[in-house]
Amino acid sequence: MGEKQKIVIIGGVAAGPKAAARARRRNPDAEIIMLERGEMTSYAGCGMPFFVSGMIQDYNQLFNTAYGVKRDAQYFGREKGVKLYTRTEAKAIDRDKKEVKAVNLETGEEMVFPYDQLVLATGASPVELPIEGKELKGVYKLNHPTDALKIKEALDTGEIERAVVIGAGLIGLEGADALFNKMVDVTIVELQEQVLPGMLDPDMAEKLQQHMREEDVDLCLGDKVLRIEGDENGNVKGVVTEKRGFIECQMVIMSVGVRPNVELAREAGLEIGKTGAIVVNDSMQTTDPYIYACGDCVENTHLVSGEKVYTPMATYANRQGRVVGDNLTGGNSTFKGVLGTGVAELFEMNVARTGLGEVQAKKLGYNVITALHSAFDRTHYHPAHGLMFIKVIADRDSKRILGAQAIGKAEVAKRIDVIATAITFGAKVDDLINIDLGYAPPFSAPIDPVVHTANFISNKAAGLATGISAKEFKEKVERGEDMVLLDVRTPEQFAPKHFKDDRVMQVTLGDLRERINEIPRDKEIITICAMGSRAYEAARILQGAGFKDVKILEGGYNAWPYELEFEKK
Amino acid sequence: MGEKQKIVIIGGVAAGPKAAARARRRNPDAEIIMLERGEMTSYAGCGMPFFVSGMIQDYNQLFNTAYGVKRDAQYFGREKGVKLYTRTEAKAIDRDKKEVKAVNLETGEEMVFPYDQLVLATGASPVELPIEGKELKGVYKLNHPTDALKIKEALDTGEIERAVVIGAGLIGLEGADALFNKMVDVTIVELQEQVLPGMLDPDMAEKLQQHMREEDVDLCLGDKVLRIEGDENGNVKGVVTEKRGFIECQMVIMSVGVRPNVELAREAGLEIGKTGAIVVNDSMQTTDPYIYACGDCVENTHLVSGEKVYTPMATYANRQGRVVGDNLTGGNSTFKGVLGTGVAELFEMNVARTGLGEVQAKKLGYNVITALHSAFDRTHYHPAHGLMFIKVIADRDSKRILGAQAIGKAEVAKRIDVIATAITFGAKVDDLINIDLGYAPPFSAPIDPVVHTANFISNKAAGLATGISAKEFKEKVERGEDMVLLDVRTPEQFAPKHFKDDRVMQVTLGDLRERINEIPRDKEIITICAMGSRAYEAARILQGAGFKDVKILEGGYNAWPYELEFEKK
Repeated sequence: MGEKQKIVIIGGVAAGPKAAARARRRNPDAEIIMLERGEMTSYAGCGMPFFVSGMIQDYNQLFNTAYGVKRDAQYFGREKGVKLYTRTEAKAIDRDKKEVKAVNLETGEEMVFPYDQLVLATGASPVELPIEGKELKGVYKLNHPTDALKIKEALDTGEIERAVVIGAGLIGLEGADALFNKMVDVTIVELQEQVLPGMLDPDMAEKLQQHMREEDVDLCLGDKVLRIEGDENGNVKGVVTEKRGFIECQMVIMSVGVRPNVELAREAGLEIGKTGAIVVNDSMQTTDPYIYACGDCVENTHLVSGEKVYTPMATYANRQGRVVGDNLTGGNSTFKGVLGTGVAELFEMNVARTGLGEVQAKKLGYNVITALHSAFDRTHYHPAHGLMFIKVIADRDSKRILGAQAIGKAEVAKRIDVIATAITFGAKVDDLINIDLGYAPPFSAPIDPVVHTANFISNKAAGLATGISAKEFKEKVERGEDMVLLDVRTPEQFAPKHFKDDRVMQVTLGDLRERINEIPRDKEIITICAMGSRAYEAARILQGAGFKDVKILEGGYNAWPYELEFEKK
Repeated sequence: MGEKQKIVIIGGVAAGPKAAARARRRNPDAEIIMLERGEMTSYAGCGMPFFVSGMIQDYNQLFNTAYGVKRDAQYFGREKGVKLYTRTEAKAIDRDKKEVKAVNLETGEEMVFPYDQLVLATGASPVELPIEGKELKGVYKLNHPTDALKIKEALDTGEIERAVVIGAGLIGLEGADALFNKMVDVTIVELQEQVLPGMLDPDMAEKLQQHMREEDVDLCLGDKVLRIEGDENGNVKGVVTEKRGFIECQMVIMSVGVRPNVELAREAGLEIGKTGAIVVNDSMQTTDPYIYACGDCVENTHLVSGEKVYTPMATYANRQGRVVGDNLTGGNSTFKGVLGTGVAELFEMNVARTGLGEVQAKKLGYNVITALHSAFDRTHYHPAHGLMFIKVIADRDSKRILGAQAIGKAEVAKRIDVIATAITFGAKVDDLINIDLGYAPPFSAPIDPVVHTANFISNKAAGLATGISAKEFKEKVERGEDMVLLDVRTPEQFAPKHFKDDRVMQVTLGDLRERINEIPRDKEIITICAMGSRAYEAARILQGAGFKDVKILEGGYNAWPYELEFEKK
């Protein structure tokens, strides 16, 4: 024995290098070997859209440390004490002999790496749509820096006027945004009826869609790509979808998700979960205690639902890599699970979510209560204030916070991170109301949007307020139901923008007490304002005066994602 | 007895109006009366510095709702159903009769307001320094909108070239920043040895001071104002301090803190705490169960230390007002306490803190462990990234997080809010490491600065890392101790900026393994880099090679708040 501990790590992008570096810092003597089948290691995949858009100008920035050193084999050897083999693909794991068989993809040389502990950080690969034309010139993915480089080069020819992005997930939208910033007309085709189906509830997505349409992004939702068509030179000339038909374009980006790379694990007899990713315990061990796995190839436990989920994210890869590095070297660290917290900047809107969405929570059987609120991210009198829409999802029975989503040209990431933190500790609605968040006009309001939205849930749960969502409201109005749409904004606010419908009645909040007898008591009343607060105030006045059926349009006009005119049914 | 519930509220700025509005929403029938001795109600005190700086141009914005309605007696009457008496001062409370005696300050008319429940929201008043010259023309406070208006008018004459701000607390610095933005030369005189003594530890304050000095803000710390001098016309012409002597100026802003207004409560026999503010329970009741108190006139419980503290903040006033509104109307809400979370934008630096500071925690007897880290708020390759210094304070025994402070031209408010949330739930260091925070390049790094700093504490606690603060380091170097200052940055980073001292040795991190024998084993080694991460890496390499006494300069050069040259002792 007396021999050095041998650690072999398969995969050199995010989780692998992290595990390697952490193990090295904890054990100066171990032999640490990292195998990467690609040429590039430790690259910033999340930076690719910013390189395509031109915001990041130097391609090398995707590979360098903050202090300008390229993370290549020399870097890993000299700074991290890790022996890196690039272009070296692991082909099989012999768990009895505890060795990995690999091949050098350049020379064809076969190699065997014995290990005491093995780490699988094999990542994920883009899903390939089985459609005609995907091999045409001008059809790209956006999963690897070389993809970004090729897209950038094509854009720089100046010949790309229109592009089609297939898939409206995060990467698809980030890619579309990058093209949009390069003045390319973009059509996004998505099989589901909304953008970001894995991230946002339909109502929040609707708001983003409204904004994207206003920015002239062409959305084909609930549509299916049938094939990609090319010209005589093999260049893409368009995409054909089921509903829209032919969409002319000179570029296609396919981003319909990723799948975990689990072949090696499966062939070695390690357990693969229902999600299709490698099963690990909270020490990040696979079903073989000598083999760890981390990053985009493993499944995670959702901290709210307890369910297994596949959530490949850079931040999990890094944090899991550290846990593995600890446990490889005698530590006892755990990675308990995920909330699926995500944030993105898309078409100058910030979008974020954590925990369960409303739809997701209902599917899981929760007795869901939600509140959606329009709010400024700072005091309204601070000139930099921006508008957000924030929705909090809770369990009506236990009052536990299940999730939250926010969107706006405003600081939403903080609010979602705060709620993610609260959920981690099992926070209830009242806990959220009581958190001592920092306030100053450039950063927040005396009552932060998080607290305000929690207050709204609390009011709803206590029977002080009844809300109606934009979608329900629209459907009711379009069904022709007899009701009063009571707009309580000022006449100055009402004049330029209001619902175009006969049932609208304008009574400024300040006049409501004295004009209350003008409002029919036998009808359903929907109170409406700009943000939602005055509508609540009005509803309380009406309810206090004995009105029985009063609902607040949640989020008010600012959160309204549709046309102001209704379709008559 | 069939009569309407009578609620009387004394104070109409923040907590009072909130309590009134909330009570009204919950009880449509109560008679709600609000007495305010000033002319103005419900104004945005926190907006005053932004009005002075010109960022907010319209004075009315400090008084209006987001939808442009002035919050005056008409507003309270018509929108909130609250009867407001302005210029009406409560003079005495008769607790037996349950009535308030008040006087109209305009007419001298005496009034009596019977109550079922009374709310004291009497606020705070600026501390008056007992110094000569404080009545001179050109000497201002910054506690009321009229103060801001007077300062603004004086600035607009164009005759103010130099100003002295007395007191380097939050309001003093916000005022100084506003003057600075108006191109006025500013000297700040502060009795204590640092700026923001109530908010920041000395090391964090030092960093802000360095920045302010670079911006040509003149700081007189640890100095005492003796008198203010005027000219023959009664206009201020300068301030005389103990150390600096005469400082010429045409304007003085005195901001040496506030004191709670408790006379009415004291005379009514209600308990006043050691902090000098009104004692309340967590239902916000005073020692008379029919009398509630909230806002700047009450003391709070610190949620970490359990001690009573006086922390007048707009956000507490609002949140407490809501709790009072609930409890006035049959509710059962509580306000458990505060973390003293605060945030400010000062001289284009963002400053935030929550919980206990290091100094404060040590005084309270905690076995303190801290970590200070330099970090970017986004990925380094995102062009908008900014640098922050973040310090987390924990209890070495229980590993509980006690507090955190951050400063930088970067997004720090989010990090402090996240930590505030975590502390609320009794988070330990490992909990902070495991929070699922949102990541995308425009918002964060794969390992958020919060997580990174928690990792650093964890490494320190596990004996993997030993840190040294800038101050300790400087003192050691200046004492002439024999040691090696091992700068592990690249030569390109070293050349333009490094410590000027014979004990400095430059060995790039990547060369350290092969050059390790050049480093003396018998000396104390301090490893140094730009941010702190490579210094940690280097320390691990040295320790792995058997070096016994290795320390990391926490936060690296970026966090260094002093000159690069050392005084020789």
